[in-house]
Amino acid sequence: MKISARNVFKGKISHLEIGAVNAEVAVGIAGGGKITAIVTNGSVRSMDLAVGKEVSVLVKASSVLVLVDGGGVRLSARNILAGTVSKVVEGAVDAEVSIALDGGVAVHAVITKDSVKSLGLKPGVPATAVIKSSSVILAVTD
Amino acid sequence: MKISARNVFKGKISHLEIGAVNAEVAVGIAGGGKITAIVTNGSVRSMDLAVGKEVSVLVKASSVLVLVDGGGVRLSARNILAGTVSKVVEGAVDAEVSIALDGGVAVHAVITKDSVKSLGLKPGVPATAVIKSSSVILAVTD
Amino acid sequence: MKISARNVFKGKISHLEIGAVNAEVAVGIAGGGKITAIVTNGSVRSMDLAVGKEVSVLVKASSVLVLVDGGGVRLSARNILAGTVSKVVEGAVDAEVSIALDGGVAVHAVITKDSVKSLGLKPGVPATAVIKSSSVILAVTD
Repeated sequence: MKISARNVFKGKISHLEIGAVNAEVAVGIAGGGKITAIVTNGSVRSMDLAVGKEVSVLVKASSVLVLVDGGGVRLSARNILAGTVSKVVEGAVDAEVSIALDGGVAVHAVITKDSVKSLGLKPGVPATAVIKSSSVILAVTD
Repeated sequence: MKISARNVFKGKISHLEIGAVNAEVAVGIAGGGKITAIVTNGSVRSMDLAVGKEVSVLVKASSVLVLVDGGGVRLSARNILAGTVSKVVEGAVDAEVSIALDGGVAVHAVITKDSVKSLGLKPGVPATAVIKSSSVILAVTD
Repeated sequence: MKISARNVFKGKISHLEIGAVNAEVAVGIAGGGKITAIVTNGSVRSMDLAVGKEVSVLVKASSVLVLVDGGGVRLSARNILAGTVSKVVEGAVDAEVSIALDGGVAVHAVITKDSVKSLGLKPGVPATAVIKSSSVILAVTD
């Protein structure tokens, strides 16, 4: 499988909670991080999702927000991944920002070029990737 | 807090309805507008969300659609914000379109350059920003 | 109605299942394909959605992922649309990829330029569009 999602994290399901319609699935990724996904209960069944199962976590770069100076902020988004900006590629409107997380994993975000400027993003700057759990897609290959 | 979401609206929660899994949160913004977000009940608790509380409403520009000539259309998206195009910045693939709402607030959308052309978007043209409530993130700082 | 969503498919609702909070709506599109949307039960009521009703299915190009070599993969995303790349337009950061589906309909995706390269996308290459059902907006005009 090759997929256009710029963020593909391999991991094992560490927690799975079935709700009325959707399930919340937490996946432990390399470096000790964790990413939470909301998927339908139908997907849990059709993909045989269970604690311990290996899955790929897919997140489009356009679904990632970048936060700086976030001390004291609480967000409704579930995934808050702290790291350091490792790369910025600017286009005319958008820019791709890569954030290296503590565990060695990188998260890629496509944000507007204006935001890169207003947030002062450049390599070496501490930054946090923010991802809504409803923006996460899970994949299994077995 | 500085965040890459191009759209950050400050406001007060005007309505909050708890469902089985998610809650619907309406936030009154400057100029009399309203933006509705769907967040998990867990977020309502962890963020102490309640009617009257001040929150920031975050929406990525890439989550905003632009509608013109929308007379008689009904959409499944909850947030329909009418205004006038104030600015268009074109890139090779994408373009950023700013729409000034009646209340003085602006909404920014990243859409394809092809759509700018087919919709005839340019400063002064009436246009409506469309945002799914599931694309909205809430933030609190206390 | 003219809307910035690059993907607008006209079709008829073939299946509608009401849940506790949300409803799952399947829409048959030209060429025999099907696209599934998750909308709130409130939208079902306000839009008078029912099996047989004509609707427009709206999907932003930035909500579409592109998959190649997907044999054996199971995804939590509900809409998996196989076809052939018909066009690629590259920008500095992003690229727009058009995929012609079997039924003559085309799906447009905005993905990063890096992904175009790593997936080897160019006209004639088999590719699959992947769309989360929560990224789909429905519109009716009557």
